[in-house]
Amino acid sequence: MSTRLSSQEDYEKLLDSYDTWLFDCDGVLWRGDHLIDGVPEVLDILRRRNKKVVFVTNNATKSRKKYKAKFDQLGVVAHVDEIYGSAYAAAVYLSTIIKIPKNKKVYVIGQNGLEEELRDEGIQYIGGTDPEDNTLEPFDLSNFTIDPDVAAVVCGLDTQINYTKLSKAFQYLTRNPGCHFIATNEDSTYPSSAGLLPGAGAISAPLRYALGKDPVCTGKPASTMLDCVKAKVHFDPERTIMVGDRLNTDILFGKNGGLTTLLVFTGITSEDEITGPNPSPIVPDFVTQALGDFRIVERSS
Amino acid sequence: MSTRLSSQEDYEKLLDSYDTWLFDCDGVLWRGDHLIDGVPEVLDILRRRNKKVVFVTNNATKSRKKYKAKFDQLGVVAHVDEIYGSAYAAAVYLSTIIKIPKNKKVYVIGQNGLEEELRDEGIQYIGGTDPEDNTLEPFDLSNFTIDPDVAAVVCGLDTQINYTKLSKAFQYLTRNPGCHFIATNEDSTYPSSAGLLPGAGAISAPLRYALGKDPVCTGKPASTMLDCVKAKVHFDPERTIMVGDRLNTDILFGKNGGLTTLLVFTGITSEDEITGPNPSPIVPDFVTQALGDFRIVERSS
Repeated sequence: MSTRLSSQEDYEKLLDSYDTWLFDCDGVLWRGDHLIDGVPEVLDILRRRNKKVVFVTNNATKSRKKYKAKFDQLGVVAHVDEIYGSAYAAAVYLSTIIKIPKNKKVYVIGQNGLEEELRDEGIQYIGGTDPEDNTLEPFDLSNFTIDPDVAAVVCGLDTQINYTKLSKAFQYLTRNPGCHFIATNEDSTYPSSAGLLPGAGAISAPLRYALGKDPVCTGKPASTMLDCVKAKVHFDPERTIMVGDRLNTDILFGKNGGLTTLLVFTGITSEDEITGPNPSPIVPDFVTQALGDFRIVERSS
Repeated sequence: MSTRLSSQEDYEKLLDSYDTWLFDCDGVLWRGDHLIDGVPEVLDILRRRNKKVVFVTNNATKSRKKYKAKFDQLGVVAHVDEIYGSAYAAAVYLSTIIKIPKNKKVYVIGQNGLEEELRDEGIQYIGGTDPEDNTLEPFDLSNFTIDPDVAAVVCGLDTQINYTKLSKAFQYLTRNPGCHFIATNEDSTYPSSAGLLPGAGAISAPLRYALGKDPVCTGKPASTMLDCVKAKVHFDPERTIMVGDRLNTDILFGKNGGLTTLLVFTGITSEDEITGPNPSPIVPDFVTQALGDFRIVERSS
């Protein structure tokens, strides 16, 4: 069962127990374009107490550099090297795990951010934002020349998804032997500021369905993401806590990595999913309404 | 185990045993835009022997009327009332099974043919080929006004699939209480004349994934399609045979309906899937290379 934080002592104890704080962003720090109340103050408390702060996002539409602008815009202090995105994790997976040869290419279903991370890792790609593939013109397979150097298809959230991209990706995955099928993340929905929209998992779903197989996923809850963080940040899992709003991504990610987990209710998960008659099998160690609740440690001190 | 037809006697016996012959089209009669050898002759043999001939297709991009043009173009004799498509089955499902009220609407992900069948059944629809929804412009949920009269989303093969259509369908399915989720068919791939492309099942896959639930399917192998045929054509299941090229649609459809089944190898299924070391659990009663093989009954007679 999860421990519900309530007293000032509860929050103080958590602050004392963990040196490294991993945060999901959407649903924890902000919701769409709206900052969640008290977030800058709580991050400030953590930094003043010399906590290591890391932001782990499944958002693959923005590179870490671009994602930093979102923090700036909302007035949340962050450094680029504190930010880990699933697009970055996909690029690192390709460059260091698969070790894709320099002369090979990736076919991209995704946006700018994914392309930027691939470029930064020195990986050649086609598709993505190429105007030729961002079209609703009919796709004619008989006019399509397959590129034999495409050794992987990487799929992230792509609001320009269309039949040409899906058809090309399908050709590479079925006709180029050993072509890797990678998804930046498997989130079923994407929380825009006006409400839920289909997420990155929905964008790769047509390929999953047509191929009858699942992609390797580099975002939360997969451990690939934590491997990326570990490569850059030294932390003791026993003194590290993952804060998130989604059970099947954030909390599972923390659990998979042997971290302590804290669930907030400012995003996807409702309190009913924890305390209701049919609770989720994924149980966070701690729950609190919102990250801003930690301000209690300063208020009466 | 399936019986492999080979001698003239085998084919003669089949012709004697079945009065009603249901045919899948793509992969049996033609492949993309190429007529399969001997098909007109075999259909002619059946008609001369007073067999009832029915064409059952999961193709939901064309109405039955438009689909008839394909028969004409390839020189295959067919009458509109012999043709049953999954778009027609979806329209009949809405009008006679669900009995959607006349003042309610359907949100369409699909092409002309699906719209035409809905119109013919007197069902109001939005989406589909509406230029407003056939766009790669960003979808802004805050500018979207949900239509409270949308009581169902129907999804067929749509080569104009895009994020606006998926997002609108997702809103109706999550925000309009009791909104029905219907797919014309679940084919994972679509056999174009130049090769396989993602099929209708891949088009509804993003919604399945985002919703975490499956649609009601009106195409093969679902029995909804056979219910449509039964409503118009009297046949004795014991003397009816389903001829197809796909195990998980055509052959399963025949089996679900208590019909005898015949698999041909001119489409999706390779002989290895029947006779190889890991045969499919879906076992047709009979197999033959191609429909044209039935010409043997006339050659030496």
